[in-house]
Amino acid sequence: MTLIRQFIGEVLRARRAAAGLTLRDVSSRAQVSLGYISEVERGQKEASSELLSSLATALDVPLSELLGDVSDMLKVHEADLMVNLEHEKVSLPAA
Amino acid sequence: MTLIRQFIGEVLRARRAAAGLTLRDVSSRAQVSLGYISEVERGQKEASSELLSSLATALDVPLSELLGDVSDMLKVHEADLMVNLEHEKVSLPAA
Repeated sequence: MTLIRQFIGEVLRARRAAAGLTLRDVSSRAQVSLGYISEVERGQKEASSELLSSLATALDVPLSELLGDVSDMLKVHEADLMVNLEHEKVSLPAA
Repeated sequence: MTLIRQFIGEVLRARRAAAGLTLRDVSSRAQVSLGYISEVERGQKEASSELLSSLATALDVPLSELLGDVSDMLKVHEADLMVNLEHEKVSLPAA
């Protein structure tokens, strides 16, 4: 199962790269430990609402855009799952 | 500061109401305690990625849609904040 925190991590990392910021930059701007941000980016830790808010400010991105990115990634993922499900149905022997 | 967990709570409650489900229904479908879901709906507890996934399944709504709702609500909220900020600027005495 792919979890939302993994998509949130990917979005945060992509937005940080797009802004040309290092983990150290974001850590210093958001006043959050570098290790914690790194774990969140790798989808290993849940980001609290407060942390997401601080990271959005540090990245200069509205929270609505971060969540919009996550929603878009989930939509693509859900569509892929549906396609795989259809393929599985097709390859099952007829009852 | 309004936090994402409050918007997530509002979205979950609205989606549950739209589906005509009680807290008890969702609790039983998602195999999560009624008290925990109630706290999440009131924005008092963070929902883990696993819980959000279970609740989306229980509500029969794709996760991407739940997050899309939250992103939309945040966008309206951010726009309101900008308007308030502009009003404050206008009402400040000229320097």
